[in-house]
Amino acid sequence: MFESAEIGHAIDKETYDAEVPALREALLEAQYELQKQARFPVIVLINGIEGAGKGETIKLLSEWMDPRLIEVRSFDQQTDEELAHPPAWRYWRQLPAKGRMGIFFGNWYSQMIQGRVHGEFKDARLDQAINSAERLEKMLVDEGALIFKFWFHLSKKQMKARLKALEDDPLHSWRISPLDWQQSKTYDKFVRYGERVLRRTSHDYAPWYVIEGVDPHYRSLTAGRLLLQGMQVALANGKAKEEPAPFESQAPITDELSLLTSLDMTLHLDKDDYEEQLITEQARFSGNMRDKRMQRHSLVAVFEGNDAAGKGGAIRRVAAALDPRQYAIVPIAAPTEDERAKPYLWRFWRQIPARGKFTVFDRSWYGRVLVERVEGFCSPTDWMRAYSEINDFEEQLIDAGIVVVKFWLAIDEKTQLERFEAREEVPFKRFKITDDDWRNRKKWPQYRTAVNDMVDRTSTEIAPWTLVEANDKHWSRVKVLRTINEALEAAFAKDRKSK
Amino acid sequence: MFESAEIGHAIDKETYDAEVPALREALLEAQYELQKQARFPVIVLINGIEGAGKGETIKLLSEWMDPRLIEVRSFDQQTDEELAHPPAWRYWRQLPAKGRMGIFFGNWYSQMIQGRVHGEFKDARLDQAINSAERLEKMLVDEGALIFKFWFHLSKKQMKARLKALEDDPLHSWRISPLDWQQSKTYDKFVRYGERVLRRTSHDYAPWYVIEGVDPHYRSLTAGRLLLQGMQVALANGKAKEEPAPFESQAPITDELSLLTSLDMTLHLDKDDYEEQLITEQARFSGNMRDKRMQRHSLVAVFEGNDAAGKGGAIRRVAAALDPRQYAIVPIAAPTEDERAKPYLWRFWRQIPARGKFTVFDRSWYGRVLVERVEGFCSPTDWMRAYSEINDFEEQLIDAGIVVVKFWLAIDEKTQLERFEAREEVPFKRFKITDDDWRNRKKWPQYRTAVNDMVDRTSTEIAPWTLVEANDKHWSRVKVLRTINEALEAAFAKDRKSK
Repeated sequence: MFESAEIGHAIDKETYDAEVPALREALLEAQYELQKQARFPVIVLINGIEGAGKGETIKLLSEWMDPRLIEVRSFDQQTDEELAHPPAWRYWRQLPAKGRMGIFFGNWYSQMIQGRVHGEFKDARLDQAINSAERLEKMLVDEGALIFKFWFHLSKKQMKARLKALEDDPLHSWRISPLDWQQSKTYDKFVRYGERVLRRTSHDYAPWYVIEGVDPHYRSLTAGRLLLQGMQVALANGKAKEEPAPFESQAPITDELSLLTSLDMTLHLDKDDYEEQLITEQARFSGNMRDKRMQRHSLVAVFEGNDAAGKGGAIRRVAAALDPRQYAIVPIAAPTEDERAKPYLWRFWRQIPARGKFTVFDRSWYGRVLVERVEGFCSPTDWMRAYSEINDFEEQLIDAGIVVVKFWLAIDEKTQLERFEAREEVPFKRFKITDDDWRNRKKWPQYRTAVNDMVDRTSTEIAPWTLVEANDKHWSRVKVLRTINEALEAAFAKDRKSK
Repeated sequence: MFESAEIGHAIDKETYDAEVPALREALLEAQYELQKQARFPVIVLINGIEGAGKGETIKLLSEWMDPRLIEVRSFDQQTDEELAHPPAWRYWRQLPAKGRMGIFFGNWYSQMIQGRVHGEFKDARLDQAINSAERLEKMLVDEGALIFKFWFHLSKKQMKARLKALEDDPLHSWRISPLDWQQSKTYDKFVRYGERVLRRTSHDYAPWYVIEGVDPHYRSLTAGRLLLQGMQVALANGKAKEEPAPFESQAPITDELSLLTSLDMTLHLDKDDYEEQLITEQARFSGNMRDKRMQRHSLVAVFEGNDAAGKGGAIRRVAAALDPRQYAIVPIAAPTEDERAKPYLWRFWRQIPARGKFTVFDRSWYGRVLVERVEGFCSPTDWMRAYSEINDFEEQLIDAGIVVVKFWLAIDEKTQLERFEAREEVPFKRFKITDDDWRNRKKWPQYRTAVNDMVDRTSTEIAPWTLVEANDKHWSRVKVLRTINEALEAAFAKDRKSK
């Protein structure tokens, strides 16, 4: 795999000097066009052998191009905030916005290769890391991102020669970094695992480019040209990709039977039972959240449901058991300008709780397959791929010890109408009922289909949906709290077994 | 100070029920007006005795008002990312945007009072913390923020009675938190230091409100009404404050002598000296950055200067000595929409390096007293208060172990003209020269006055300005690197002495 990058590629100074000005100009043009279109971000991953010119190339690109539109991010040791979140969180928080370029120096590949080289884990975990990287990149590309993966290479002989030359030159010996010394010892392993990773993760949508690093002219021109070509193609192709042919994909409802219609909407609790069960579940929840074992977990509760199904009231009963320092409630509305400039799941990643904490999502990432699907705010391709992206996202949360509970609060049409009318009569509740709510109500059948599809496709063993019969608020609130408690206790029990 | 909050204020249920609906409606209206005006944020600090209803009030406000416009932030243990930055960084990163409300539960006051109560530090450090809080709030208010500081109070007797009642009620005993038990032991100290802090930090621009917490009706109505009144006044007054009477405040130049005109612009280095000195200083810099002692510090380098003075080239020579993982270059352009919604210094706080790291600011917070002053982008009041805000900001950086170096790269008018013309001739350099540059050039005298004022007012012993004679790029680059090295080595030497 690296053979062609060990043959001594070189470009002489004259050729280099003659070519660079036009390349720089074209790169700048592409950059400004990227900014103008603001349709997608460019993500450049820099990997390879120490001393093969990774750092030099990053500096050069910032010199050739307009550095105001480039963000260089380096990732080394994880901070404790990063360690308290799922592994991908640290990358999500640094994603460049549409129209900008992010250069990731020290990225998911460096992490997995270094970890394997230094024996922190075995092949099985390396393979897992490879799979995660593939899914992450696939999602980024589906969101429009243009990804370049550069591997700067030196043969073992070239690397040794470089170190020797620097060592012998007192004026330049400081250029040898501790990483150089480290790698001179682990070169063979590093290249072996590097090759495995590159082979497995080179896809048409995000291919690897192996660049021989010995000669700076060759290396710089090659990287610059690859970047330019890729950007030019993406900028020209863009328009076509932006608007996929719309198509109707809603499954016809073949009978009246569905998950939602089969709920027993008469379930209820009378006042005394409610008050007793509520306080019991709240005390249990308070105890669970203070339990020592909670330090290994965090809790994410997703609340979706029909308008006026009582999400707010249920959330308040959950929060009532806790100190506000223990939880955060995140209301999800239409995305802001900043949020629209990032991949869809970005704004949810930002809100994922650190270990020991609890986040309530009042509406959530399921908006994509509910309101955005029904209202046509995103293309069918986008909401259809959302199912697997969401499953993947939740799997990452659960792998990191996060307990995920998801509620659909269901009421029937009659109950909704009564509540809408009641809200309109109370001045301080009027803000809760808008024209949108009335409009949504007319799309009851479309929402029902969307909810059925959502539950079918995203109710997994690790993150099941709980459908809550919410015509009776008492019943609904107690069921929500009890479900959360059961999920936490199941996670605690599993810890014990796995010890 | 707390006497009037220990006398058993109470409001009966009928009055409460009668008043709440109108209050809620008015609060909602104020909130939407706040969002509509989007001129200032509301910051609510929640402090006081455990069990006096702090958490309950936060929950109630989120219920009464539209929770989508409220952010509840709680601060307890500092994370290691927070510990690696100046103390105020954790609060800056959570400031609400204009038009929104941020409720800070566990804030600078809780931190300083708890620290003093538990003997982590003495009175002198408490006084320092009080001063910092005052400066922070003054700055926020000057930026337009509306600050409420609530102290929820219980007398010692009331606190004990509450704990006793909960303990005796098995159904509700879980409501006693570990903090309750802790505070029941430290009540006297807590109140003593609390009083000292409140007395010193109650100002007209950000007064404290002490609210007796025993009776939930009284407490809730009082907090709600205070919030409403304050918001209504600020929303009505707003327009007047928004546009201060403009006035001309530029000091007349009384003679031709100035800091800038007294620089010796003929200073230069020939090529051989330059190459030798440059590599020497780069090696020294590389060594300093890898020095173990660097782990206690970080480095901030500010580059300001005339257009075309060679900032970019100087920055590249600095960066050349390092691995890109060791530094970040932050180019400062006009603020984005998000940045304009926060206090002026917010976007710089975000970029302050963690310990051991290095950030280069290519232009900086000094834009306020340079381009914004000269071009009239902010009011004279704003740029005049910026001097002391900046000094305060830099003092906080330095107190946290950050080494701050600030460069003004000065060229004369003739040299600038030559460089402008040269840039226009090279296609890939044309993006560096805009109409703005030509316009700025016509304001040479105004910029000279602004630079003189800036250096006079912000060149402090702890963070001095270095004026760099930059007609000769060789001289300029070596002087920059040498200055950085001397500053780092001075900081290391000081560490040794203070041990």
